[in-house]
Amino acid sequence: SPVDKEVDFANYFCTYAFLFHQKEMLSDRVRMDAYYNSVFQNKHHFVGKTVLDVGTGSGILAIWSAQAGARKVYAVEATKMAVHAGELVKSNNLQDVIEVIEGSIEDITLPEKVDVIISEWMGYFLLRESMFDSVIYARDRWLKPNGVMYPSHARMYLAPIRSGLSDHKMRDYEGAMDDWHGFLKETEACYGVNMNVLTKPFSEEQKKYYLQTSLWNSLHPNQVIGTPAILKEIDCLKVTVEDILKVEASVKSLVTKEDTWLSGFGGWFDVQFKGSEENPAECNVELTTAPSQDDGTHWGQQVFVLHPCVRVKEGEEVYVNFSMTRAEDNHRLMKVDLGYSIKQSSGNMLPRVEKKFFIE
Amino acid sequence: SPVDKEVDFANYFCTYAFLFHQKEMLSDRVRMDAYYNSVFQNKHHFVGKTVLDVGTGSGILAIWSAQAGARKVYAVEATKMAVHAGELVKSNNLQDVIEVIEGSIEDITLPEKVDVIISEWMGYFLLRESMFDSVIYARDRWLKPNGVMYPSHARMYLAPIRSGLSDHKMRDYEGAMDDWHGFLKETEACYGVNMNVLTKPFSEEQKKYYLQTSLWNSLHPNQVIGTPAILKEIDCLKVTVEDILKVEASVKSLVTKEDTWLSGFGGWFDVQFKGSEENPAECNVELTTAPSQDDGTHWGQQVFVLHPCVRVKEGEEVYVNFSMTRAEDNHRLMKVDLGYSIKQSSGNMLPRVEKKFFIE
Ligand SMILES: Nc1ncnc2c1ncn2[C@@H]1O[C@H](CSCC[C@H](N)C(=O)O)[C@@H](O)[C@H]1O
Ligand SMILES: Nc1ncnc2c1ncn2[C@@H]1O[C@H](CSCC[C@H](N)C(=O)O)[C@@H](O)[C@H]1O
Repeated sequence: SPVDKEVDFANYFCTYAFLFHQKEMLSDRVRMDAYYNSVFQNKHHFVGKTVLDVGTGSGILAIWSAQAGARKVYAVEATKMAVHAGELVKSNNLQDVIEVIEGSIEDITLPEKVDVIISEWMGYFLLRESMFDSVIYARDRWLKPNGVMYPSHARMYLAPIRSGLSDHKMRDYEGAMDDWHGFLKETEACYGVNMNVLTKPFSEEQKKYYLQTSLWNSLHPNQVIGTPAILKEIDCLKVTVEDILKVEASVKSLVTKEDTWLSGFGGWFDVQFKGSEENPAECNVELTTAPSQDDGTHWGQQVFVLHPCVRVKEGEEVYVNFSMTRAEDNHRLMKVDLGYSIKQSSGNMLPRVEKKFFIE
Repeated sequence: SPVDKEVDFANYFCTYAFLFHQKEMLSDRVRMDAYYNSVFQNKHHFVGKTVLDVGTGSGILAIWSAQAGARKVYAVEATKMAVHAGELVKSNNLQDVIEVIEGSIEDITLPEKVDVIISEWMGYFLLRESMFDSVIYARDRWLKPNGVMYPSHARMYLAPIRSGLSDHKMRDYEGAMDDWHGFLKETEACYGVNMNVLTKPFSEEQKKYYLQTSLWNSLHPNQVIGTPAILKEIDCLKVTVEDILKVEASVKSLVTKEDTWLSGFGGWFDVQFKGSEENPAECNVELTTAPSQDDGTHWGQQVFVLHPCVRVKEGEEVYVNFSMTRAEDNHRLMKVDLGYSIKQSSGNMLPRVEKKFFIE
């Protein structure tokens, strides 16, 4: 279904028009360090070059590109934040190098093709927001044949985890249903209407909300109880939109904790700044959003909780079938089918369990 | 500007598609009692009559109308909630009387005109959501010449209040600015970019968010420090959309507390079910959302906070110029210009203060 631009603004772009939100991203030290180092430790990619910043927001990546020596930087931003980016560019005296353009990357035109495309397009669990589509579009239209992408590569991970969230969310759900039953009694007693026919749809709505919607969480590395598996590897120079419409993988994780609970799965991503084969980076920088005690990011991890939790032991293997596609009614949100089965040390395979989740 | 229907769904209707939200309204005892009593204590308006329920939601008002003896009820609902309303109607065995129609009231057609229009269209501070436009539209198109409106009348009130919210929000704003200044230092020190040019727009954004956006609050009657003034009276049978596009009033409130702080103004509304002149109610029912210790509603009150607060004394008069119009970019939200000046007991008039607020 084609995207209604006005709806997309109401649902998606609106948040980016707030400086408060841009500031949150600008305050993410792990994110900032990675982009900063990727630019300034690879100046040869920028000196005298033309750069396109897709979704410049406050303008930060465009400014760094210019400071690293770019000849010309096109900084494109769909929201009114473009106005602030322009002010920031000017107050840092870079208005001769950076041209801020307000508009969707899909709608604007540039006077030339560029040597570098830089963009911070990653959403929760990498692909939420589907902004990478716009970067691919920009690459196909505006990147020179030997140009480089910043970042150049991306990977998605999944790992079995233990977490109190599973019980917590189950209690929330049960609380909502208790409430509902009290409500039913009152509505019948005081207002003469029996609403019991709505119990099932209400329960489904609440289940979806509490149990099937993936949760933002900042996991501690200890909570990861098995080897992380790579779900997807992306070469930003070659990938097509078609390639990322669906993420499908069958992976295996080895339980690494002695005796523990499997309460769900955690998903995260990393991106690399390696340049291209013809034009490699001098210094490879990586930005990871993996569980970390000290270097958490605003992306955190996405947690898919299981009910009930499952007892697992070191050496057992968790076989996971993962499939992620876009929500029918909003191409920037995702739905996930996740099936898993546990192979015990004896070789015995426990029955497969299938779950559906939503990344909202 | 014409309303983009898809955007309106994304921004507005979407919440009503959740049973959880309908349940919140159905759990508001003050609201429920008022509509229930208005229908069952005025059965003469319903027995053998045709009724239109504009925005039936779960179907509750349509069901009561049928139970009170209506010959036919058209229950129109724009969202998928219509499906649940249909189920509820059926499980209460009223499918021969009630016809649930999924669609906007502006888009659907009925086979006949109706004797009664019932609707629960009231938003925060009465007019937020602008749903009353749809009821007026329905009235002009589908109500018989001698038909009645449920509710029949509505009033908006404003009163001076004292509240800790004023200080609280000022502290939030100051905290956000402190944070910002730390952020500026870091961004300059670590990443070589001076963002000071964004301080003013950031401050304005935060001021709008913390200080100029009206707040939902459940005020205690003690917090009302002066006589409430009526800002607007609406006869639901006669009012036009034009009449409610702008609410403008110059009113006066007498301070009734001995020696206190004026920290802002509280806004609320009431509606009456009085039938029409030709066809009056047998029993007048009123639904008020005024500050109340025991009978609060989910509407609460809208609070407009002042900074700084002002010391006021019993007998002083607060002269208020109030003007509310719709937001340019979203016809369901409002902006408010509120000017006030205090007339001291000596007759001395303090200088007028002008404030702008947003009802989001
Ligand atoms: N198709 C598109 N065209 C232009 N801008 C887009 C876009 N899709 C997303 N954006 C913008 O891209 C930004 C992503 S957030 C990253 C902002 C900035 N580059 C930084 O790193 O801090 C948002 O400001 C969003 O409004
Ligand atoms: N123009 C329109 N056409 C049809 N339904 C509308 C509408 N504008 C608002 N609505 C619906 O009106 C409802 C208002 S909430 C009230 C629900 C129900 N009558 C009750 O009293 O509990 C929402 O469900 C909303 O989706």
